[in-house]
Amino acid sequence: MRTCYTGQVSSEHLGQIVTLFGWVHRRRDHGGVIFIDLRDREGLAQIVCDPDRVDTFQIAERLRNEFCVSITGLVRKRPEGTTNASLKSGEVEILAHDIDILNASVPVPFQLDDDNLSETTRLTHRVLDLRRPQMQQNLMLRYRVSIEVRKYLDQLGFIDIETPMLTKSTPEGARDYLVPSRVNAGQFFALPQSPQLFKQLLMVSGFDRYYQIVKCFRDEDLRADRQPEFTQIDCETSFLNEQQIRDIFEDMIRHVFKTVKNVDLANPFPVMPWSEAMHRFGSDKPDLRVSLEFTDLTDIMKDVDFKVFAGAANSEGGRVVALRVPGGGDMSRSEIDAYTQFVGIYGARGLAWIKVNDLAKGREGLQSPIVKNIHDVALNAVLERSGAQNGDIIFFGADKAKVVNDAIGALRVKIGHSEFGRKQGLMAVGEWRPLWVVDFPMFEYDEEAGRYTAAHHPFTAPKDGHEDLLTTNPAAALAKAYDMVLNGWEIGGGSVRIHREEVQSKVFRALKIDAEEAQLKFGFLLDALQYGAPPHGGIAFGLDRIVTMMTGAESIRDVIAFPKTQRAQDLLTQAPSAVDEKQLRELHIRLRMPEVKTAG
Amino acid sequence: MRTCYTGQVSSEHLGQIVTLFGWVHRRRDHGGVIFIDLRDREGLAQIVCDPDRVDTFQIAERLRNEFCVSITGLVRKRPEGTTNASLKSGEVEILAHDIDILNASVPVPFQLDDDNLSETTRLTHRVLDLRRPQMQQNLMLRYRVSIEVRKYLDQLGFIDIETPMLTKSTPEGARDYLVPSRVNAGQFFALPQSPQLFKQLLMVSGFDRYYQIVKCFRDEDLRADRQPEFTQIDCETSFLNEQQIRDIFEDMIRHVFKTVKNVDLANPFPVMPWSEAMHRFGSDKPDLRVSLEFTDLTDIMKDVDFKVFAGAANSEGGRVVALRVPGGGDMSRSEIDAYTQFVGIYGARGLAWIKVNDLAKGREGLQSPIVKNIHDVALNAVLERSGAQNGDIIFFGADKAKVVNDAIGALRVKIGHSEFGRKQGLMAVGEWRPLWVVDFPMFEYDEEAGRYTAAHHPFTAPKDGHEDLLTTNPAAALAKAYDMVLNGWEIGGGSVRIHREEVQSKVFRALKIDAEEAQLKFGFLLDALQYGAPPHGGIAFGLDRIVTMMTGAESIRDVIAFPKTQRAQDLLTQAPSAVDEKQLRELHIRLRMPEVKTAG
Repeated sequence: MRTCYTGQVSSEHLGQIVTLFGWVHRRRDHGGVIFIDLRDREGLAQIVCDPDRVDTFQIAERLRNEFCVSITGLVRKRPEGTTNASLKSGEVEILAHDIDILNASVPVPFQLDDDNLSETTRLTHRVLDLRRPQMQQNLMLRYRVSIEVRKYLDQLGFIDIETPMLTKSTPEGARDYLVPSRVNAGQFFALPQSPQLFKQLLMVSGFDRYYQIVKCFRDEDLRADRQPEFTQIDCETSFLNEQQIRDIFEDMIRHVFKTVKNVDLANPFPVMPWSEAMHRFGSDKPDLRVSLEFTDLTDIMKDVDFKVFAGAANSEGGRVVALRVPGGGDMSRSEIDAYTQFVGIYGARGLAWIKVNDLAKGREGLQSPIVKNIHDVALNAVLERSGAQNGDIIFFGADKAKVVNDAIGALRVKIGHSEFGRKQGLMAVGEWRPLWVVDFPMFEYDEEAGRYTAAHHPFTAPKDGHEDLLTTNPAAALAKAYDMVLNGWEIGGGSVRIHREEVQSKVFRALKIDAEEAQLKFGFLLDALQYGAPPHGGIAFGLDRIVTMMTGAESIRDVIAFPKTQRAQDLLTQAPSAVDEKQLRELHIRLRMPEVKTAG
Repeated sequence: MRTCYTGQVSSEHLGQIVTLFGWVHRRRDHGGVIFIDLRDREGLAQIVCDPDRVDTFQIAERLRNEFCVSITGLVRKRPEGTTNASLKSGEVEILAHDIDILNASVPVPFQLDDDNLSETTRLTHRVLDLRRPQMQQNLMLRYRVSIEVRKYLDQLGFIDIETPMLTKSTPEGARDYLVPSRVNAGQFFALPQSPQLFKQLLMVSGFDRYYQIVKCFRDEDLRADRQPEFTQIDCETSFLNEQQIRDIFEDMIRHVFKTVKNVDLANPFPVMPWSEAMHRFGSDKPDLRVSLEFTDLTDIMKDVDFKVFAGAANSEGGRVVALRVPGGGDMSRSEIDAYTQFVGIYGARGLAWIKVNDLAKGREGLQSPIVKNIHDVALNAVLERSGAQNGDIIFFGADKAKVVNDAIGALRVKIGHSEFGRKQGLMAVGEWRPLWVVDFPMFEYDEEAGRYTAAHHPFTAPKDGHEDLLTTNPAAALAKAYDMVLNGWEIGGGSVRIHREEVQSKVFRALKIDAEEAQLKFGFLLDALQYGAPPHGGIAFGLDRIVTMMTGAESIRDVIAFPKTQRAQDLLTQAPSAVDEKQLRELHIRLRMPEVKTAG
């Protein structure tokens, strides 16, 4: 039997005989002695094989990387000067008495500590890739997060209730993964995009507090941080108001960070209305580690000669802002050009700027291609409102509000995260800056469709007193919706739900969903609301993203054991794959392959 | 804010003002006073609305069944003679000071305490059905089982690692649910039938101890205890032998029964080789609550005149057994006929019997249609071996061993569970009788296919010393496989796995799976075994079944929030359903509908 994990051998075991299981991470022959770094999921320990113990030494000579072995030996202090502070076992070594080769290994296709492997290599050889200490730690941290969530919610009376994986397709939102039914010819199940409706039904059923750590599915084109299947921490509770709900889940995240990473998050989290977040940061998920903020200039730019500013300031839905970057006055032309290109990704058609060389010299002290077309009143407003200091650079955005917010919001983060931003102290490196963004609009106007769409989802309750706005002025109606944001990432989002059918009907009317369509799509929820549905609300957290942040991983694929590539393929098992004609026949489907174009 | 759950108000709260949330379970007007049974997930409490409190009383008058309300009031003792011992709150009542109607309810389509509802009604109105106290308790118990499993495994270092839901179709075993790929035209994912291969890969990756409470899928024709999606407690560990693995999971189940139901299961569980279970009970999942056992007579019946017995005893693979039923001598002809019909379901072509009226009278004291064709030696062996007593009936089975085991094994349980069996003390009613069945055969011979198939699955390790039998005598090779059986149900099954590639190859050869086929189907596992795979093994438990047993539910559909019908439909959401042509087109499939026959 194992005495303890290899990675946990320490000075506590000095003088003891221990038995360890693990893999040969490295073997070194030095001065006639064989040194083995033995590895298990908890870490490494150094094994010493002395030539005096002939049998054991002969076995040690046969060891190669990734052999699986059991080793029994004496724990002793490492010689002076050879300790390794980066390992828990770094002060000790194990003098091998017995070695048992449990399984040999063919030569591995790459070194586990090679940090320059392609993702294709890593995912193809995922079983070996997962042996890398970083991947072991990532998945163990992921587990600690989920079990600490469970412990916290258990103690508050939340119960895990499983909702169906084979459910109904609703043709809105993201694309569903479909599952053809064999028994019901021509019909399909859908894999759930979230258990949203089911958790609301469970509240109506009276389960009071529900949670689930559950796989959800979206058949979308994949980006770096997306997977076809992803995991939500999905929660819902009855009889609590927005503040009470937020308090519970704010506490949960604090509990997780404290127990898993020994990090104390702010208590309480700052709470910021959506409108303030957009105003100050141009983003509904501001990275508060970055100290830069927008200065709004829309009001003052209406009559300047610079057409870009005046045009945006005068157009409906236009916005003009400044972003003052302390100490940015030394930026080179090529740096500014690079930033100009960067904001172009977000639709900005240029990036105006002013370098503040010497405020005492007035216009003379400013360096800028645009300043000559900005009259004194506006220029003074820029400098005063932004709090300009000598040595700053001030960037400008002027366009439709969405373009300005996206472009200058992204620029704000880009500069904050840059080496310059870090050096300049514009970024609280290594800090965790959570906040709640609240009071989201109920609706967004879809220009193309010429109608409102639900900003969150159509079951979100309006703020108290905003019920009438649903009919009279939908654009002004705010929702009891809230996002938890951490370091610029939305890690959770939720809302108080509508629990009265008449409010739900109003929302559907605002969304131009008629009664028939509503009944067809959400009939079972509307029916349920009639039977004494309780006030309820909840939240869903993205586990993959939270763990990615907590581990510092570059991709969510590094916190998922068997992820899919960006082509939605599993390189290890070679899924998806072709299937038998017999299987298709049983499912009442046939292939419709894209036509192959032949040269003619 | 809620003071406590409604169902938890008790004498502890006497004299306190409490605030409760819940649903009107029943309203009674009695002597000018309104009594309300208020219900939440924890149970019921009696609310008293006094006409003296005019405002509150007026609200109480508007209450109807299933209204959702908040009630604040004084907890006081119930009047003498009106206490209800079946409720936790049965000694107290709450004098309502304030009532707030949180949501009204339209009249419900059935009374929640109606026990005679059809399953169609219940599943169609699942949201109301789930409000029934029994359903609330079932799902809360289900949760307690899962969280206690997690707590137990956490403390032993098992970590929950998620495996893919979108995985590769393997065309053996049960039918897969398929998911067409949009990105990879003509290819399909399969929903997992179990994470078997992935958990083995995780062991090869060095995660040491894995578990997952995970949805699995089988597209099979449904029986009473089957669902298209079901939940497994899936576990795997490295570096332990069979006994050590069984000990861990035996302890887990004991922990769950103790913490969830306060039941002390046997410690240790009995361990029974598969051959013994088949010999004594004709079943690999014997219900040990039933005290009846087989008496084997194959050796002694070879030369009796009764052809049915002699034929079975002399044929290869034939078996003759007796099942002595103490006190069964009074069974009527029609009871015996009913049992005869019952064993017919399992292929038995009759059911011979002897009633033991008076042993002192020899043959005269026996009543039987067959006894005249059984010679003295055999007859004495029947009576002696079975331990016959006056007043018994002895049933016989004679056929191929499989038919005898199935038929008489089922009869054994049937009689034990019958009213007669319970009265006669042949059944330990209300007891829990777990055991391990071990030493299963490696292979079963498939007559139709003319080859061996894996009895468990092809990754199961042979017993030590049985490796050579894989080649020389596959039928005799036993496996390190084990099932946990409770009261006649297999609740978990597992094995030590093969961790050396050369043993795996031998097993494939015994199964007539050639290298190419093996590589195609399980290549990623075979590859993984080459890289120092550790010794490992595990087990999977059926959560639905365990919870069904623990709750005493009649069907697993009573322990699943949103189950499918036997036609694999969700009556609540109406899944599966037709989908848009556009969706099919994107998935590169078209329908192939069964031809409709027209009269012509």
